[in-house]
Amino acid sequence: MTASAGSSRIGVSGLAVMGANLARNIARRGTPVAVHNRTAARTKEFMQAYGDEGAFTPAESLEDFVAALERPRRIIVMVKAGKPVDAVIEELSPLLDEGDIIIDAGNSHFDDTKRRTAACAERGLRFMGVGVSGGEEGALLGPSIMPGGDPAAYAEVEEILTGIAAVVDGTPCCVHVGPDGAGHYVKMVHNGIEYADIQLIAEAYDLLTHVAGLDAPAIAKIFEEWNSGDLESFLIEITAKVLAKTDEKTGGPLVDVIVDEAQQKGTGTWTAVDALGLGVPLTGITEAVFARGLSALSGERRAAAKTLSGPNPSAAENREDLVDDIRQALYASKVVAYAQGFAQMRAASVANGWDLDLGAMATIWRGGCIIRAQFLNRITEAYAEHGDVENLLMVPYFTEAVANAQDAWRRVVITATEQGVPVPAFASSLSYYDAYRRERVPANLIQGLRDFFGAHTYRRIDAEGSYHTRWSQDGTEVRTDV
Amino acid sequence: MTASAGSSRIGVSGLAVMGANLARNIARRGTPVAVHNRTAARTKEFMQAYGDEGAFTPAESLEDFVAALERPRRIIVMVKAGKPVDAVIEELSPLLDEGDIIIDAGNSHFDDTKRRTAACAERGLRFMGVGVSGGEEGALLGPSIMPGGDPAAYAEVEEILTGIAAVVDGTPCCVHVGPDGAGHYVKMVHNGIEYADIQLIAEAYDLLTHVAGLDAPAIAKIFEEWNSGDLESFLIEITAKVLAKTDEKTGGPLVDVIVDEAQQKGTGTWTAVDALGLGVPLTGITEAVFARGLSALSGERRAAAKTLSGPNPSAAENREDLVDDIRQALYASKVVAYAQGFAQMRAASVANGWDLDLGAMATIWRGGCIIRAQFLNRITEAYAEHGDVENLLMVPYFTEAVANAQDAWRRVVITATEQGVPVPAFASSLSYYDAYRRERVPANLIQGLRDFFGAHTYRRIDAEGSYHTRWSQDGTEVRTDV
Repeated sequence: MTASAGSSRIGVSGLAVMGANLARNIARRGTPVAVHNRTAARTKEFMQAYGDEGAFTPAESLEDFVAALERPRRIIVMVKAGKPVDAVIEELSPLLDEGDIIIDAGNSHFDDTKRRTAACAERGLRFMGVGVSGGEEGALLGPSIMPGGDPAAYAEVEEILTGIAAVVDGTPCCVHVGPDGAGHYVKMVHNGIEYADIQLIAEAYDLLTHVAGLDAPAIAKIFEEWNSGDLESFLIEITAKVLAKTDEKTGGPLVDVIVDEAQQKGTGTWTAVDALGLGVPLTGITEAVFARGLSALSGERRAAAKTLSGPNPSAAENREDLVDDIRQALYASKVVAYAQGFAQMRAASVANGWDLDLGAMATIWRGGCIIRAQFLNRITEAYAEHGDVENLLMVPYFTEAVANAQDAWRRVVITATEQGVPVPAFASSLSYYDAYRRERVPANLIQGLRDFFGAHTYRRIDAEGSYHTRWSQDGTEVRTDV
Repeated sequence: MTASAGSSRIGVSGLAVMGANLARNIARRGTPVAVHNRTAARTKEFMQAYGDEGAFTPAESLEDFVAALERPRRIIVMVKAGKPVDAVIEELSPLLDEGDIIIDAGNSHFDDTKRRTAACAERGLRFMGVGVSGGEEGALLGPSIMPGGDPAAYAEVEEILTGIAAVVDGTPCCVHVGPDGAGHYVKMVHNGIEYADIQLIAEAYDLLTHVAGLDAPAIAKIFEEWNSGDLESFLIEITAKVLAKTDEKTGGPLVDVIVDEAQQKGTGTWTAVDALGLGVPLTGITEAVFARGLSALSGERRAAAKTLSGPNPSAAENREDLVDDIRQALYASKVVAYAQGFAQMRAASVANGWDLDLGAMATIWRGGCIIRAQFLNRITEAYAEHGDVENLLMVPYFTEAVANAQDAWRRVVITATEQGVPVPAFASSLSYYDAYRRERVPANLIQGLRDFFGAHTYRRIDAEGSYHTRWSQDGTEVRTDV
């Protein structure tokens, strides 16, 4: 079925798998969609494969594409992040009219989105940066959607976006996040948290393999069990499936023949870089990013394995206790990683004037996206009950969760340290917890040293002002701010 | 004494304390120096205070300043990093002739230095980015100098710069680092390593306080002892002095009345951000930056101290053993932090085509700068004997050093974990060590998960190519790269 010109409610430009699946998702819900791709052959292929799924208008040229749309025109751009997005905007802009809406649904950096929002506004166009999570399947069946941009522009697309989003407990996983780059920002932090979640799972798997002495199918069963408790989540569920998978070729576990070099597409790195810029301690996600970098140095690791000494892990004596300790360590570390990620969003919200509703972010991550989990309901409840909390660790539910898990968590870090098994995310999350609950940290010495070598001054706990000790002269203290 | 126009070998613009001290250092060694400051009053004050120390030509205007210089003109700009540097270049450029040399001796970001080098080259000017470490005292008496830029331009200033640098074992702490941003890059990593060094010292101090149960004067004595062994360095030396300092007001240790919120000027953050961009695992420096960020959240920490549970550290039973364990943990973690920092410089050298001589970098850090230490001789020797090593941990001297220290290192991390004392840099360095020496890390599972939720594919250890398992369809494996 092909609809007539000017009648499509929305258009999708860029028909690689993500764009194609978004277009299909929209059309299947009864909304007429114009489709376009730089290479027209792909548009034809799309129509041949999916043309009967809904009211599509295929367009070979951008002119035809634009002409096929209702006004204000709503155009989803789904191309590779970076220069291709700018190129599409440049080509589209002269064909559009005031008030038309360009929606970048790719994985753009939020700073680019801020820049593009301002540039489009100068031309009278409305630009939206929309985070979409859930991969190919999510795009087709219901993703988590994080729309950022002008609220009036969002109102023009709200029905379409909430209509295609995942739904959990009757609530669509789509809510207006905030102005300009807010949507892409939240999507970035979502991906960063995903890095931490995955690293924690990898550390648990590593300990279960090398300290508990279990093979992949046995570990698969453990993750399957864990998926019925506090850890219930998409990632734990698919970890069980990946570990249970038998390799067709060798007859052994597939995971045992997969190369141990983790790839990455950059959003975890963006999250860590942004946290450093904000001055927010984000140790869980950052250690996860570094662990992927270290995994990629496989040539160096193989040489080092022959040269650098250390304990060889041996099977634990009380395996059942260890397995449950690891579960608790994973849960406590996960709470810390989420607390850090939400603290980062809070800081970014203040820095950018976005006024993010952090509880709503947890709500729209409950379905469609990679980190979807029951656990997120606890975060939504935390903000609903306690308002603008500075750190989720301070909300009673999480305070108690970590209090209950921490003995096991410490035992796991101790065992890993004894046995020489790396646990960068478990251990750094614990250090963060232990530092966060310290009334006084040793930064007083840091300030003393900085004053000694650089005259950077320090403050005193018993008086106002800034002070410098004349360390290399007469050793007296002088006040420097008066 | 005031020299005549056109006779100054070099000029210094920007007479705040760093610029003033550099100018004095140069003049005291017999080189005529023109001096200039945006506010002429400061130039007058400078001449009144130091005018008799050497052959200075004070200049009120940039025109007079430029006229006072020999050709090619050599101009050191010592102003606040960022826009002020660009402003000075803009004002100076029209007054200069082809081949004149502008030297930015401030703490500029190396990307800015690359940009400025290119912009000046278009105008026929030679721009140098020169890292200077050692604070005010170093600038006056002999800093560590890290000059980057065109080698021919460096040849024009080499005699002056090597003449004012610190000297260790007869060798000046100044060597041409590489083109464009290389000098400022190496200075940035120097500062990053300084962050790690200081954080490790702070963790040792914290453990000595809360687990060994010692007061500041007792810990001062320990650092003084440590300064005669492997740890001998400027930072260990001044740690002893800061801890030994009695507060005039309270009569107790000064360090006990200093506020525990560490400040930072940003170069540690730049180093961590750059490592993330390069994909180099840089856990020691990054945890140090995050620890400063966490220290600054003192209001949150005070509230959390009342709410979050955990063990209270208690004095150790065998204090002497613990103290020596902490020394060894500090040394092993320091080796890891330096290994990471040098691996980062190596990666940056490749990425930027700088051809850095890493052994020479260790040599010029031996004197003048904050991280000066005998330890750096071991790094110079490592590169001299083993060439382009990928990681210093693989050089026998450091391999053995960590092998000898690691039992103590593990005991310290275990004790800290048991007692609830945060050791982010000790623990993350150990996790890095344990991961680096692993032939196989659990990133195989990460790749399996990424293939499940995002069809990102994986490689097999037993065959060429990229593979995808049709997880949600028929479960078969397909090759994706043919």
